[in-house]
Order: sequence, then C-alpha cells, then structure tokens
Amino acid sequence: MAGPFQITAREAGGRARAAVIRTAHGDVRTPAFVPLATKATVKTLLPAEVAGLGYDMVLGNTFHLFLDPGHELIDRFGGLHEFMGWRAPIVTDSGGFQVFSMGHGTVADEIKGRQPMGHERQGRILEIAERGVRFRSYLDGSEQFMAPETSMQIQAKLGSDLALVFDECTPFHVDRDYTARSTERTHRWLERCLAWHADHGPEHQLVYGIVQGGTYQDLRVESAQTIAASACEGIAIGGSLGADKPQMYEVVDWTTAALPEDRPRHLLGIGEIDDLIRGVELGIDTFDCAMPTRLGRHGMALVPDPGGRWRVDLTKARYRDSDEPLMDGCPCPACAHGFTRGYLRYLAKARELTAMRLVTLHNLAFVERVMRRLREAIPAGTLAHEARALRDGAAP
Amino acid sequence: MAGPFQITAREAGGRARAAVIRTAHGDVRTPAFVPLATKATVKTLLPAEVAGLGYDMVLGNTFHLFLDPGHELIDRFGGLHEFMGWRAPIVTDSGGFQVFSMGHGTVADEIKGRQPMGHERQGRILEIAERGVRFRSYLDGSEQFMAPETSMQIQAKLGSDLALVFDECTPFHVDRDYTARSTERTHRWLERCLAWHADHGPEHQLVYGIVQGGTYQDLRVESAQTIAASACEGIAIGGSLGADKPQMYEVVDWTTAALPEDRPRHLLGIGEIDDLIRGVELGIDTFDCAMPTRLGRHGMALVPDPGGRWRVDLTKARYRDSDEPLMDGCPCPACAHGFTRGYLRYLAKARELTAMRLVTLHNLAFVERVMRRLREAIPAGTLAHEARALRDGAAP
Repeated sequence: MAGPFQITAREAGGRARAAVIRTAHGDVRTPAFVPLATKATVKTLLPAEVAGLGYDMVLGNTFHLFLDPGHELIDRFGGLHEFMGWRAPIVTDSGGFQVFSMGHGTVADEIKGRQPMGHERQGRILEIAERGVRFRSYLDGSEQFMAPETSMQIQAKLGSDLALVFDECTPFHVDRDYTARSTERTHRWLERCLAWHADHGPEHQLVYGIVQGGTYQDLRVESAQTIAASACEGIAIGGSLGADKPQMYEVVDWTTAALPEDRPRHLLGIGEIDDLIRGVELGIDTFDCAMPTRLGRHGMALVPDPGGRWRVDLTKARYRDSDEPLMDGCPCPACAHGFTRGYLRYLAKARELTAMRLVTLHNLAFVERVMRRLREAIPAGTLAHEARALRDGAAP
Repeated sequence: MAGPFQITAREAGGRARAAVIRTAHGDVRTPAFVPLATKATVKTLLPAEVAGLGYDMVLGNTFHLFLDPGHELIDRFGGLHEFMGWRAPIVTDSGGFQVFSMGHGTVADEIKGRQPMGHERQGRILEIAERGVRFRSYLDGSEQFMAPETSMQIQAKLGSDLALVFDECTPFHVDRDYTARSTERTHRWLERCLAWHADHGPEHQLVYGIVQGGTYQDLRVESAQTIAASACEGIAIGGSLGADKPQMYEVVDWTTAALPEDRPRHLLGIGEIDDLIRGVELGIDTFDCAMPTRLGRHGMALVPDPGGRWRVDLTKARYRDSDEPLMDGCPCPACAHGFTRGYLRYLAKARELTAMRLVTLHNLAFVERVMRRLREAIPAGTLAHEARALRDGAAP
C-alpha cells in the first residue's frame, strides 16, 4: 500500500529527491518551503494569496496558539483549517522550540548576539523536568505546563495534518554531556508523544519525530537512528545546528546520511536562500523559517545576489530616488504592478502596512520560485546546474 | 461647452443630485465617498483593491506628503498618481486642516474630548500670520513654512486632479469675532491660491475653494457666497461644523442652501454612515473621512444598525466564540471568504495586520455600497425611500 510519502524522482549520485506528501487536506509537493502562519495567519496575507503564490502548506505555532486563543476555542471552530480559512495542508510545530527559547534564547539569537525578542523575554521557564516544562505565559504571566502529551493534545485539537513531537530544543552553548542527556530525554519524550497519539490522536495526522544531538556527529547519528527506528511518519531536524553555515551544513549532512529514505525530512527554522539550495542537495524535503516574511515587514526584499546576502535593504538612503522595481522581471504582485524601490522605501520608512504586505508578497514569491526551480530540476536531472545558476545570481 | 461637473439627475423637490466630475484621470461618479490615501497609500490596501471595491478617487494629504517624502521627490517620480500606482482621480487636501490641528487640536478631538493624536501633538505652530504659517515638523522638529502659495505649489507638484485651497481651519472653541476674522483671511488666501494657480498650476487641476464661518449662519452664508463668486471650480465645506450631529447638519444645510448648483461640493472630514446619508440629502457630492479605514485597523466593523452607531467592536469578549461573518450576505472579501467574527476578533486582539486589512476591506466595501445605493436612488426617484431603509438597518 502506498504510504503518505512518495518519492517521484532522485538526483543521480546525490541525496536530493522530489516527492509528494499526501495529507488529508491535499498534497505537498517537495522540496518545499513552508511559510509561517504563527498565529493562524501568514502575517499581512490572506489564505488565497498564499496559495496563489504556489504554496501547498503553512506552519501553525502550537505554543502561541495554546496561549492565545487556545486550542479549545480553535477546536470549537472546527480546527485550525476552518478557523483560519486555510483548507490545504497545515503542519504544526510542537511548542518545544518556543518553550525552551524562553529559557535559553534561540540559537539564532546566540549566533547573532541578539537578545531574545520582546515577547519571549517576558515569558520564563520555571522548571524543566522529565514530566514536562512549567513556564510563565508571556501574555499574562500565568503559570502554564507543557508535557509531551500536552503538546500532542493541543495539536490534535488544532487538527493539523503534520504534527511534531515535543522535544527539548538543546541550546548551542551547553556542553556535550548536557547535549547527550537532553537528546536522550527528547527520545523518551518521542515515545510518550507517539504513545499518546496512537491512543488519542486524529487518524489523519502524521507525526514527525525530531532529531537532536547538537553539533556532535555521534549524537546526531545516534539520534537520527533512534528517531528513524520509531513509529514516526516523518523526521524533523532541530536544535542547534552550529555557529555558522558550514557547520550547519555539516550537521545536516551527518543527519540525512544517517536517515532512511522512506520518510519525509523537515529542517526546522532554516530558510535563507543559500541554505534552501544546500538543504535540498542534502536531501531535505521541507523547510520553515520566519525570514522571508519577517524581512518583508522590515523593508528587506529578496533579490538575486551572487555571493551576497540575497537581499535589498529598502530603508537605505540610496533607494530614495530609485524608480527600479524590487527585481527586474519579477512576476510577484509588487513588481508586476510597477511599484518602485523609491515608493516602497518611503512606505517602509513610514511603517505603512501596505509596504509590509507588498514586500512580504515579493519575498514569498521569490522563495517559492527558488523552490520550484529546484523541485523541477530533480526529475529533469539538472539540479547541480540549477543550484549553481541560482548561487551565481540567476533570477529564480 | 460642457464643464468638468455634469449633473445627471436631481431629487425632485430636494437638494440631492447625481453627477459626474470629469478629471484628467477619469470620471468620479457622485455622490461618492473618497477613501484616504493620506501617505500615498490607502492603509493596508493596494490600488487595485481600492478600485475593485468601486472607488473612483482617493485623497492624498498635502501636509504629510510635504514633510515626507516631499513633493519634489514625488514630482521626480512623475507625480502622485505614478508614485503610488493609482492612475485614477486623486484629490489633495490643502494642508490647512493638519497645520492648524497642531495648534488647535481637531474639531473631532474637541467634540469627543480627545487629545490630538500622537504625531500631531509633537508638531507645533510657531506663528500664524497673513503671509502664512510657521510650524515645527512632527517628524524631525525642523521649522517649516506654509503659505497659500506653498500649498498650491506642493499640490501642483503632486499633480492631483482636484486641489483644495489653503484655509485657516477655524477651531470650535473660538468666539464669533475670531471666526469672522479667520473666515475673512481664508477668503483672502483663496484669492492668493487662485492667482498662483492661474499663473503656475497644472492646467488639468481643478481648484476647490473652502467655505468656513464656524457655526454662525450669517458667516457661513457669506463665506459660501464669497467662495461661489470666485473662480474656483469646486466648493468644499470645512472647519468646525458644530458640537453634535444636529448642529452639523444645520451648518451644512445653511451652506448648501447658499451655494449655486453648478459646482461640485465636498464635505471635508465627514463620513459616518448617518452623516453620509444626510449629506447626500443636503446636496453634498463627495465626502472624505478617516473613519472606515481607521476603525478597520482597530477591529471595528461597519454593519447595519438601526438607530445605533453602525458598528461592531470585535474586541468585545462576546465575539470570542462567534462563528458569524461580520455581516450576513456581505460580498466583501472578508465576509465572502467566510472569516468569522471569532477569528477576526482573535486576530484584531493580537494586532495582526491581516485583521486590519480584512476589516478595512469590509468597511470600505460597506461604505461604497451605501454610496452606490444612494447614487442610484437619485435618478430612480427613490432617494427618500432608500435613505429611510438604510437608516432602518437595511443591508446596503
């Protein structure tokens, strides 16, 4: 019998694959980027617009939706699909990343030397124990508890198509011993999540395990094997992926090399353009990241940029008089309508919502075209060529 | 020769009229509401969406655009139409209202007992003199000067289709003597604006004079006659219209009774649903107001509401579980897609931009349907019937 994951093409001599994840709400064509709908909306956009850009799936946030408006309320509306009006596939993260970010700060914060974002900073972990995590809500200071079973229960009520197990998101700054013990706990929590789901979870919902193990090769390999040996139907790669991009690629490389081919692989929280290209080459099927949407709200537009950061910062003075579009020939709604960098710069500096929306549309359109180009290159046998072209600044 | 304003139907025995204002960028069918594009964008929306709701014209703000990004920059982009990508008619206000609001507070603030909004409060009038007004920018504290000629020059660079003359927006709290002297200055400034425009203004641009005179009948009538006797091509009604709705309607009644029929009439800053209905009955052709868009950004949706305030405040707890749409049978993008009050309430409370956009779309769609119904009722001879039905809570 055909399972929910079907590989349709493989890169000759490589690890990349094109595939389809079949869910109760439709198919997800991979490799694919998954836009964030953290609080039951892709910020500034309507569901029809997100679908119109070519996206099959969005990611809802278990932690945020648990605190507000609550999974019980969403359940009364018929689940997250009905609540937010997105009737295509939804993946929900487990909340582990957000809960542990309150205590540890995020990996990205650490790498980039940032303080945690405003919201997370006001929340606080009270206790991390085998049974689960006690923490204070960043919304109202109330004490909350999340166990592996709680996370699965919330995701069951949300009714997502893909659910992630609750993990301890191991931080970057801890030592090998802590990482090993934390990874083992994640494995024990995996079994509790799967057991809860087998008894109570919605039948249509596929469960992803999460590989941890920090930046230690043996721990990553062992974690990959443990997750793969479980009954989970998909495998996510989480936690600290290293201090820089070469190390991140190395950690992903160790992990996908140790994974069986038969299940879909999701790389958590990664989505810069060069990372997407490398991830596909390393055999990742799906990615999620706040980057394209968050950059869009801060006036940063994605553009081809050989050897660079793939972005234009519209708030720079040099764009004041620019009558160029964000990107020549781009078919996105912002570029196709003829909005200039000068106009978008003015709107972005004035914090006008129309700018946030237009640059968000452009960025998500850009990422989807990158992914489509990679997705189509795999059956065509041209992945190496396409990856090189994109890295050299070809317009996606 | 046919002028730019053609009345196509009149209410029998009343003052209402249906008409067309012909501009260089297309026709404006009246009576019409004009959405605000204060800072060169209808907040949260794209030009195609505003047009798609049925609007022929938007209003740009001379004061705000003068301070940022500056009319010279907009001129380098080919004018406001090209800059913002709205290629249909644009009216620009003169900046008088905003300049004087910094000193006086707005009429609405006074009536409602509010403090001026954050931005305006930080600006400050330094001197009001015959030659013009010196003030501090709310953006950077720089000293600025605006004379009647400055306002016309800015509007010439913006290239709007309809320009308003620079007036002293007489506040509500001043006495009859101040109002009389202020209105006389507005009349002298009118002549300076018209003289500047005759020599330097764009040929396609129609100039509206502004009737002042506060809440004094003789001053309003005299001002209406003075403006009507000038060379202006349209007539706006500005300044303090009174402390409550009955007084506002009375002031408008005095004014339109004193005006000739041959020029379009704009009622400045008024746009609540009952005011639009009454304004049309009193012979007003166009209206502008921040209300529908501003309410939308604060989670307040327009709905039929006999004898009430025509609005639903989504932030109220009673909508938490509501699976109703904003309005039954509403064809707007928010209602047609099936978004519930409960979902929109959640998004609005979370200050999600998608909510601001959806409720803005709903509100502007609602107002345009009200206006269309009134507009079509005039040639049909059913204005009294339609006005009564709308006041009684008929869905527009």
